[in-house]
Amino acid sequence: MVNVGIIGSTGYAGQQLVWLLLNHPHVNIDFLSSNSYEGLKYSDIYVSYSQILDEKCISNEAAIEKTPDLDVLFCAMPHGKSMDVVKKAFESGVKVIDLSADFRLKDAQVYKQWYELDHTCADLLGTAVYGLPELHRASIKDAQIIANPGCYPTSAILGIVPILKAGLAESYPIVIDSKSGISGAGRGCDISKLYAEANESTRAYKVASHRHTPEIEQELSSLSGCDANVIFTPHIVPMNRGMLSTCYVKLNKDVDREHLLSMYKDFYKDEYFVKVLDSLPETKWVRGSNFCHIGLSYDNRTGMAVIVSAIDNLMRGAASQAVQNMNIMLDIDEKCGIDFAPMFP
Amino acid sequence: MVNVGIIGSTGYAGQQLVWLLLNHPHVNIDFLSSNSYEGLKYSDIYVSYSQILDEKCISNEAAIEKTPDLDVLFCAMPHGKSMDVVKKAFESGVKVIDLSADFRLKDAQVYKQWYELDHTCADLLGTAVYGLPELHRASIKDAQIIANPGCYPTSAILGIVPILKAGLAESYPIVIDSKSGISGAGRGCDISKLYAEANESTRAYKVASHRHTPEIEQELSSLSGCDANVIFTPHIVPMNRGMLSTCYVKLNKDVDREHLLSMYKDFYKDEYFVKVLDSLPETKWVRGSNFCHIGLSYDNRTGMAVIVSAIDNLMRGAASQAVQNMNIMLDIDEKCGIDFAPMFP
Amino acid sequence: MVNVGIIGSTGYAGQQLVWLLLNHPHVNIDFLSSNSYEGLKYSDIYVSYSQILDEKCISNEAAIEKTPDLDVLFCAMPHGKSMDVVKKAFESGVKVIDLSADFRLKDAQVYKQWYELDHTCADLLGTAVYGLPELHRASIKDAQIIANPGCYPTSAILGIVPILKAGLAESYPIVIDSKSGISGAGRGCDISKLYAEANESTRAYKVASHRHTPEIEQELSSLSGCDANVIFTPHIVPMNRGMLSTCYVKLNKDVDREHLLSMYKDFYKDEYFVKVLDSLPETKWVRGSNFCHIGLSYDNRTGMAVIVSAIDNLMRGAASQAVQNMNIMLDIDEKCGIDFAPMFP
Amino acid sequence: MVNVGIIGSTGYAGQQLVWLLLNHPHVNIDFLSSNSYEGLKYSDIYVSYSQILDEKCISNEAAIEKTPDLDVLFCAMPHGKSMDVVKKAFESGVKVIDLSADFRLKDAQVYKQWYELDHTCADLLGTAVYGLPELHRASIKDAQIIANPGCYPTSAILGIVPILKAGLAESYPIVIDSKSGISGAGRGCDISKLYAEANESTRAYKVASHRHTPEIEQELSSLSGCDANVIFTPHIVPMNRGMLSTCYVKLNKDVDREHLLSMYKDFYKDEYFVKVLDSLPETKWVRGSNFCHIGLSYDNRTGMAVIVSAIDNLMRGAASQAVQNMNIMLDIDEKCGIDFAPMFP
Repeated sequence: MVNVGIIGSTGYAGQQLVWLLLNHPHVNIDFLSSNSYEGLKYSDIYVSYSQILDEKCISNEAAIEKTPDLDVLFCAMPHGKSMDVVKKAFESGVKVIDLSADFRLKDAQVYKQWYELDHTCADLLGTAVYGLPELHRASIKDAQIIANPGCYPTSAILGIVPILKAGLAESYPIVIDSKSGISGAGRGCDISKLYAEANESTRAYKVASHRHTPEIEQELSSLSGCDANVIFTPHIVPMNRGMLSTCYVKLNKDVDREHLLSMYKDFYKDEYFVKVLDSLPETKWVRGSNFCHIGLSYDNRTGMAVIVSAIDNLMRGAASQAVQNMNIMLDIDEKCGIDFAPMFP
Repeated sequence: MVNVGIIGSTGYAGQQLVWLLLNHPHVNIDFLSSNSYEGLKYSDIYVSYSQILDEKCISNEAAIEKTPDLDVLFCAMPHGKSMDVVKKAFESGVKVIDLSADFRLKDAQVYKQWYELDHTCADLLGTAVYGLPELHRASIKDAQIIANPGCYPTSAILGIVPILKAGLAESYPIVIDSKSGISGAGRGCDISKLYAEANESTRAYKVASHRHTPEIEQELSSLSGCDANVIFTPHIVPMNRGMLSTCYVKLNKDVDREHLLSMYKDFYKDEYFVKVLDSLPETKWVRGSNFCHIGLSYDNRTGMAVIVSAIDNLMRGAASQAVQNMNIMLDIDEKCGIDFAPMFP
Repeated sequence: MVNVGIIGSTGYAGQQLVWLLLNHPHVNIDFLSSNSYEGLKYSDIYVSYSQILDEKCISNEAAIEKTPDLDVLFCAMPHGKSMDVVKKAFESGVKVIDLSADFRLKDAQVYKQWYELDHTCADLLGTAVYGLPELHRASIKDAQIIANPGCYPTSAILGIVPILKAGLAESYPIVIDSKSGISGAGRGCDISKLYAEANESTRAYKVASHRHTPEIEQELSSLSGCDANVIFTPHIVPMNRGMLSTCYVKLNKDVDREHLLSMYKDFYKDEYFVKVLDSLPETKWVRGSNFCHIGLSYDNRTGMAVIVSAIDNLMRGAASQAVQNMNIMLDIDEKCGIDFAPMFP
Repeated sequence: MVNVGIIGSTGYAGQQLVWLLLNHPHVNIDFLSSNSYEGLKYSDIYVSYSQILDEKCISNEAAIEKTPDLDVLFCAMPHGKSMDVVKKAFESGVKVIDLSADFRLKDAQVYKQWYELDHTCADLLGTAVYGLPELHRASIKDAQIIANPGCYPTSAILGIVPILKAGLAESYPIVIDSKSGISGAGRGCDISKLYAEANESTRAYKVASHRHTPEIEQELSSLSGCDANVIFTPHIVPMNRGMLSTCYVKLNKDVDREHLLSMYKDFYKDEYFVKVLDSLPETKWVRGSNFCHIGLSYDNRTGMAVIVSAIDNLMRGAASQAVQNMNIMLDIDEKCGIDFAPMFP
């Protein structure tokens, strides 16, 4: 059995991770930690675990002390808080999967610019592997630190990479317009997330300034060899979970939809968790799963390809992707514990 | 491997069954049938199964012919349509789990009165076992035909039985006020189920006339030995899934809440899938699972016990309860394939 | 023009009041007060008023000083906070419409028992008139203080009174099972009201202990002359606004539905804002309006009448009923400013 | 009093029109017509009008015969069906406001290309005025036929025009990514619009092929004098009403956000119904109103302006804009009957 610990287990991503790991046949959860809920039973925080997981949350400090006993540490803390924890775990020889943004950017200066924080473990940025399995599987296998991708970047990168790698994109800003369910905003309390405020409303936020922008650009650029220039706009739509990214790429030559589609199908032909559809994706069809659905169109009037990509923000955008990474790192069947169809409705 | 077939696999309950059986380690799905979608790939009807279950639906007629090869037939057709199919399967020696109402009522006259149909297999009503595992486990083990309970009755009976068996109820009508997510109304198209009509609205329907009433009365009466008299009002609330039943029972003596609560905890102490809470249940905490959560209060001002019971209408109210029944019938671990925590959020 | 002030204008009920009064042809809003948002522009708190109502909120203290200049004070503060404000306004000769619970109960002892507070203006409880226009219109006309009814009591009392006044109820507990949209829980932040927690969930709360219980009993008893005994259970369902109360009354003789229905139609035949339907009400059909829709059934199996009543909790359950009361007090056409059809969808 | 008739009064836009016109102080509704519901009482179709509007719907044929008695005809039929009705009304000298797409495009060839229909009244295309009041007020005053704009074009054009007229846009495709509440899809029944299918899902549709594209291009081009090239993607998000358009325009020189913002504020400074915000708009803040809220940002990394525009799709995107047009045509105060703040929540 793989012995794992979860730091920051009571946020939405942490909880989703607990849900998956509890049913993973090769995993034993050693501890759950939480600074907000230290000492409380997990089932008092999430009543869904009543008489299933009545274990108490330990503090993050206590968790760090127990880390050397682990095979894998999952770290689901906010950015800025992860760095030191990850470093300590790494130095103890424990594999770490970090769900925060702290190890995603390769350049500490870019990190500082967007997160307004000095990176205190810049020396480990080269060690960390960006955990998008379909694009970095080989490096993930040997990684000691996984930077689990952000939800928006996961959906956008999977959608755009094939067209960039094919050299079809003009050097023009790529527009990424993403729509996320509200769980992406976390469990912290503020008025704008109250049901009566968020229900029946759609809004954009952090226009031209969201921190996932450099992450998307870094990966698109390094994967394709082009210098990707991205304008990214996140939106909140009234649903619990789900994420749809609509990506607009100006092409450098005229193609047709069938050509693009078969190129995409070919690109992902060996990938179980990425499905290229003949139709357009809907978030409901990937809900509660690790799947990414991609559909696309080409507009010959404007010369633009429109790629639409759907994931579950808490699963493929966070927890189930983390488990997929763990499976790869530990040479477990990649699908183990996350191999179920989306849950509908 | 257990070889199963699913007739009526494309309704909401049927689809939920497919989702569960696909991941059941001991089950092979032999066929999926549907009269509405005969010849279509399952993944064209529910895109969530893309490249996971691309098998085509066969007609119900073809399904009936293949039934003798099965170990278990799941029948998820509307009431009235199930009778003959169940009979044929039974006569072939195949075990049947019927999700319709056709074999739930023991008395063909009561069936006729509420369903306005003659029962054509009244001789099998005594053979069929009402599949509420916590209350009929022994009979389920040996059953050839399971009448899988209705969603409303499941939530109401589990909530009320302990108090009736304890002889605490006065002979006064029991009020059952239930709230269901809209998936309970099925996938058929009508205006009242359109998003813009159903969203932001709550309504009662079939007041004093819903067909689950005699089912609840039959079971409460036979399980408790009292003559239960029930007034039942179903409501539709704007959510995909979930069911909450608030049950009002006038007691014949003054008790206190703690007494009732410990009586309930004791009643269900060996039952994994029924959790008695100190707090009040919420449908979100059982979502996507086979669990039933029960909470209660006692009002000494009126002498009434109020028992609140929450289930997922498509899971414990239909598909996962059917799987639980199958497990029991086949002497598989009762939790197999349905042993995961509720999915939140 | 009627000069009004609104204390507590930034809660959900207060905001709804502002919305109505802004369009009332005979009203001038003198001030808006708020302790939480003192000094902020109203349109910064509710952006819907941008460039429509950019006036700043004054403190409640400043509001109280300005009260003597008013014709009518609306007080939309929490219970306990209203008493003294209402008293001061009354002593200045200003008419007051209080949306809190502070002046609804006639008996200071009952108030203390349920609200766990001493009533500091018990001498005014006899002066205050319970503002349910259809049932107390004559007294409202001459009132100086209106205790604007609670949302749950409004829906329940309008639904039950006719049957009680007709002497048809057996002396058995009346069961009132109410479902409210989440705006009823106010704008304060707590986790249980976050979208991702409240969406897709239904729950009961304060079973057998909600403070609207004595208010309902007081009014049903005094209006009917019977001694009403009520068990009331409020529920939260995932919608912004709307309230449905399902009321169960055991009758003392056998009737039929048509008889009850024509009795109800007769009872409300002169009332514009209460519609008795042949069908069952749905909250969407009264949304955003002052209307109350009532439908009913009779179950001869149990001898129980089931009356279902729908209102908009923020309108008829709070703000528009307050305006209706103001109109009556000031001899303005009762419908003025609230005479529009429900808004659908 | 202005005598009006409404053809196609039972669709969602038609109903919203009825709601507004019923309260318009200068309007008398002469008839309501509907082919689907001919002979039914309006209050049986929309129960919200019970005992408010119990008038029966006449057939569209009967409606056409009564048209010569009107001052204004509102035509809320699907495209293709409107042409002949509008023509007849026009020939009788009745002013017409057509909510369909039939008279929006100036070029019958473009109409044919996108709507796959021959235009049978191409001679009237020059007579019809595109009813976007802020941009065509003078022509609307004298118009006999108003082509009421589509919902998507209304939000997009109001958002983009100022930047184009200022000559700031590079000749590159403008990306318009719009999110609409589901009422925009109408009241017709299909599975994809059922609550359990549409809830908790976001999807794009008609990518690169939606018929509002040429309407947007026509207006942007003629209003700005540039040759606008637009790629437009509509999305459905799970809410009843509301529309948010996020528009991406590559600028031909470096500006800053403050500059753009003051330019927009200046552009709309005399317009009551278009509010330029310092913050970003949310659909909830315009809900149930005729207002359009606009916010924006500038990304100097990509040289793109992002303009976000919010309307209520049934109000400013259909019915209230139609009333605004009527007011202008008849020299009534432009705000009459639509001058209320958005309804929250």
